Amino acid sequence: MTKFQAEIDVMPKKEILDPQGKAVTGSMKNLGLAEIQNVRIGKHISLEIEADSEETAHAKVEQACKNLLANLIMESYSFKIEKV
Amino acid sequence: MTKFQAEIDVMPKKEILDPQGKAVTGSMKNLGLAEIQNVRIGKHISLEIEADSEETAHAKVEQACKNLLANLIMESYSFKIEKV
Repeated sequence: MTKFQAEIDVMPKKEILDPQGKAVTGSMKNLGLAEIQNVRIGKHISLEIEADSEETAHAKVEQACKNLLANLIMESYSFKIEKV
Repeated sequence: MTKFQAEIDVMPKKEILDPQGKAVTGSMKNLGLAEIQNVRIGKHISLEIEADSEETAHAKVEQACKNLLANLIMESYSFKIEKV
């Protein structure tokens, strides 16, 4: 069994309003950072997984994203896996 | 002015308990994914920034992280900037 580290991003889908991001975009202006636009806020998840191959680890993380970490109606996910 | 895209990760520091991550680690077991361990959950923030150079964009994003996006007592941040 090899240990892998997965880094997952779960973001609100583009067509979905992100009120937290909108609020932060507004606050940037008050901070003197009006150059910052279109802030979107999602989740970053890091986890460790033991698997016999990178393919298996990939499939398990995919399953975790679909079944638990992301709400596929409103969010999309992407991830990277690295051997540790 | 050039437009840059920044991808920021804000994570709870290693020495700080992450109860949300702990809860998700537990749920993985119920999902039949006991191979997944040590889940930690933070924020992923994407934003656009206009700046005359990548250095300026870098400094502005740094400032946004320090002053608004991350709580440096409990969280650490990292980011990547790309020209778009």
